[in-house]
Amino acid sequence: MSLKEKINAANTRALEILFHSTPRWLDVRPAIEVLPGMKENLILHAGPPIEWNRMASAQKNGVAGAAVFEGLAENIDQAKAMTAAGEILIDACHEYNTVGSMTGVTSPSMPVMVVENEPYGTTAYINVHEGPSRNRLTYGAYNTAVRKNLEWIRDVLGPALGAAVRAMGGMHIGPIIARSLTMGDECHNRPTAGSALFALEVLPYIIESNLDRAEVARVARFLKETEHFFFHLGMAAGKATTDAMSGVPYCSLVTAMARNGVEFGIRVSGTGNRWFVGPAAEIEGVYFSGYGPEDAEADMGDSAIMETTGLGAFAMAASVSMAYAVGGGAADAMRYQESMVDITVARHPAYQIPALDYRGTPVGIDIRKVVQTNILPIIDTAIAHKNGGEIGVGIARPPMECFVQALEGLSVAAQKELSQPAG
Amino acid sequence: MSLKEKINAANTRALEILFHSTPRWLDVRPAIEVLPGMKENLILHAGPPIEWNRMASAQKNGVAGAAVFEGLAENIDQAKAMTAAGEILIDACHEYNTVGSMTGVTSPSMPVMVVENEPYGTTAYINVHEGPSRNRLTYGAYNTAVRKNLEWIRDVLGPALGAAVRAMGGMHIGPIIARSLTMGDECHNRPTAGSALFALEVLPYIIESNLDRAEVARVARFLKETEHFFFHLGMAAGKATTDAMSGVPYCSLVTAMARNGVEFGIRVSGTGNRWFVGPAAEIEGVYFSGYGPEDAEADMGDSAIMETTGLGAFAMAASVSMAYAVGGGAADAMRYQESMVDITVARHPAYQIPALDYRGTPVGIDIRKVVQTNILPIIDTAIAHKNGGEIGVGIARPPMECFVQALEGLSVAAQKELSQPAG
Repeated sequence: MSLKEKINAANTRALEILFHSTPRWLDVRPAIEVLPGMKENLILHAGPPIEWNRMASAQKNGVAGAAVFEGLAENIDQAKAMTAAGEILIDACHEYNTVGSMTGVTSPSMPVMVVENEPYGTTAYINVHEGPSRNRLTYGAYNTAVRKNLEWIRDVLGPALGAAVRAMGGMHIGPIIARSLTMGDECHNRPTAGSALFALEVLPYIIESNLDRAEVARVARFLKETEHFFFHLGMAAGKATTDAMSGVPYCSLVTAMARNGVEFGIRVSGTGNRWFVGPAAEIEGVYFSGYGPEDAEADMGDSAIMETTGLGAFAMAASVSMAYAVGGGAADAMRYQESMVDITVARHPAYQIPALDYRGTPVGIDIRKVVQTNILPIIDTAIAHKNGGEIGVGIARPPMECFVQALEGLSVAAQKELSQPAG
Repeated sequence: MSLKEKINAANTRALEILFHSTPRWLDVRPAIEVLPGMKENLILHAGPPIEWNRMASAQKNGVAGAAVFEGLAENIDQAKAMTAAGEILIDACHEYNTVGSMTGVTSPSMPVMVVENEPYGTTAYINVHEGPSRNRLTYGAYNTAVRKNLEWIRDVLGPALGAAVRAMGGMHIGPIIARSLTMGDECHNRPTAGSALFALEVLPYIIESNLDRAEVARVARFLKETEHFFFHLGMAAGKATTDAMSGVPYCSLVTAMARNGVEFGIRVSGTGNRWFVGPAAEIEGVYFSGYGPEDAEADMGDSAIMETTGLGAFAMAASVSMAYAVGGGAADAMRYQESMVDITVARHPAYQIPALDYRGTPVGIDIRKVVQTNILPIIDTAIAHKNGGEIGVGIARPPMECFVQALEGLSVAAQKELSQPAG
C-alpha cells in the first residue's frame, strides 16, 4: 500500500468508529469523583493547554470564579494571585476526557455528566449547563447569583439528573441528535428541540424520584428555560466519539478542535493527543444590544467538538437562523454547510437534513483536504465578553497554520510508522 | 364601491380579524358543561352535518363507541340501532363551536379544551387527544383499551390539564404555533415540536398540583408520547379564529373546511354558517404496513381548520417529511405550500417559514381565486380504516363544486346586501 492508501484506509477505519459509536449518558457525578487525574485544587478550562499569564481575560475570570466557588480562595483577586503562583492549578478539559463550553471552566465539586461510548470503551465528561442567564461562570461571570445557581446545580439538579438517568438505565444521545436535526437544530448554537426532547425523556424519572415536589417543579422549569441544556450532552457525546477515533495510525481526520480565546488547537487521529495550535480568530456575528467587537473575546470553547462530528455549522442547513446571525438566509445556511463537503470524507448516515432531502451532514475533516483546498472548517459559536457574560453569536474559523502543522506532524508520525519492522 | 371593491374590503377586514386574533387556552371542562346546546344524548361528529344512514363506517363506529362510553347504549349494535331510531342524536361539531379530528366524535362527558379568542369574543372547544395508540375512538375504534384510556382522560388527565391551565392563567396558542414552524412542524400532521413545547409549559403546573405523584409521572409520559397532543389546541385556536372572521358581509374567504368521510363542506365568511358540500375525496398518501386504499375511509375530520388558517399543507415547507408521505422531497414541500399563494390573499405575518427566509405562509383562501385558477386547497391529513384505527397519512383536496356553489351562494348573499336600504 502506498502512504496515500494507508491514510485512506486509516480514515475509513476511523469513520467506521465514528459511525458505530453509541454515546450514552449514564450518570452525573462530582468531577472530583470521576475525572481521571482530577485534583482538589485543579480548575479545567476549554481549548488547548495555556499558561495563566497568556490566558484570555474571560477565561481567567472563569477560573478565578471557580476557585472562589470551590473555596480555594476568598475572592477573585486572591484566586488569580494563587493561580499565578501555581497554588491553584489549571489544565485543559480535553486532557481529562472532558469538554467545556466557552471558558470551559470545570472545577472539582461540579457535577459532570458521564457519557460512555460502550463499543469502544471511551468515556467523556461535561459539566451541567448553568441555565438561561447570560451571566454564567461558563462565560467568565461570577457573582452571588452565579454562585447560588451553581450551588443549586451541585446540590439539587446534578444529583436529581444522576438519579434520573440511573433509573432510566442510561440514555442514548445519538437518536435525540438525529431527531433534533429534523426540528430546526444544528445542535451547537441551536439545540432547542433536542433540549425539549431531552427534558421530556428525563422528567418522568425526576417526578418519580424522592426529590421534594417544589424542587421537581423548579427542575422542570429550569429544563424548559434552558434551551441549550442538551448541547452539553451533545458535546460529551462528540468527545466520547472522537476519543474513540483517536490514535489510528496514518489517520488524517481531525478528532478535536478547541479554543481558549487565545489559541485554536486541533488534534488529528494519527497524531493522537498532540495539539497543533494557532491564534484564535475574532468571531463574525451579531452582538446583543449594547455590545460590539471591542467587548469580545476571540474564539473560545471546546464546543467545536460538534463540528468535528458533523454538527453545528456542518449541519447549518438544519437551522436557517444560524445563517441569519451572519447576515445570510436559507440558501446561505445550505451553502455554509455544503462548503464543508470539500474538506470532509463522508456524510453522516444518521445525521440527516430534511431541507437537503435527508442527505447526511458532511463529517470527517481531513487535514489534507483543508490544506489542499484552502477551505477552513466553519464553527457556529457564541461570543463571550472580556469581563464575562454572553454578548452575541456568530461563526468562527480556525487558523490555517493548525492544519499545516498537523499535516507536517502526521507526515513525521507516518514516516515513523513506516520505519517500524513489518508484520 | 363596486361589488369587487366591496368584496376586497370585506376580505381585508376579515384578514385583520385573522391576524389580530389571540386564541388562548383557558380551561378544560366536560363537554356537557360548556358546549352551547350540548345534550346528554348527543354525539358530535366531524364534517358538515350528515344523516345517520349516509354516515361513513368509521364515523358510525365512533359515534356508537361514544354512545357506549357514555352509557347511552349497552353495546355497539344497540347504539347504532338507537342512533338510527333517533334516540341518540348526532350533529356536526362545528354547529357547537367545536372541532374534532378524523371522526371528530365528541360526547357529553368528554373533557374539552376551552380556547377563547378574547378580542372578538369567540370561544372554541375540542376534546383531548387520546394518545399515541393507532386505535382511538377518534379513528372509529372502540374496545376495552380505548374505553379505559378515555376514562383516564376524563377522570385524571382532563381535570389535571384544567387545573394546570387555570393555575397558568391561560396559555396563548399562537406563539407556540409560530415557534414550532421553525422546528419542523406544519402543525397538522406534524405537531411534534409544538407538543413538546406545550408539554414543557404545562408540566411544571401539573407537578405543583395536588395530583398523585405517580399520576403526574403518567401524565408526563403521556404528553411525551403524544406527539399530536398540541394539534388539538391548534385546531381549537383555528376555530376560535375563523369563527371571529365569519359573517363579514361580502367576504369571499373560507372560514371552515370540514369532512365527514362522505362529504366535504366549506363555509365562507360572507355566507355565515351555511355549508357548501361535495363528495369527500380519497386520500393520496402512504399506508402503514398491511393496509391499502381498499381499507380506507375517504377524507375525514375538521382538522382542515389548520389549512384554513395558513397551517398544515399551507405550511408544508416547514415539514419536508409531509412531502415524503406523497413521494416528494424538500422542493415538493415548498412547491405544495407555495402553490397555495395563487388561491390566498395574504401571507401570515406570524407564521413564518425558515426555509423560505421567514416568509409567511399563504393564508386567506379566496373562493373566487379557487374557481378562477382551478387550484384546490391542499390538506395534510391522516387515513382512517373503515373499521376504525389509523392506517396512514397523506394529502387530500376538496371537490371544486364546494367552491362553485359557495361563489353562487356569496353572489346571492351579496345581491341581498346590495338591495338593503343604504346608510
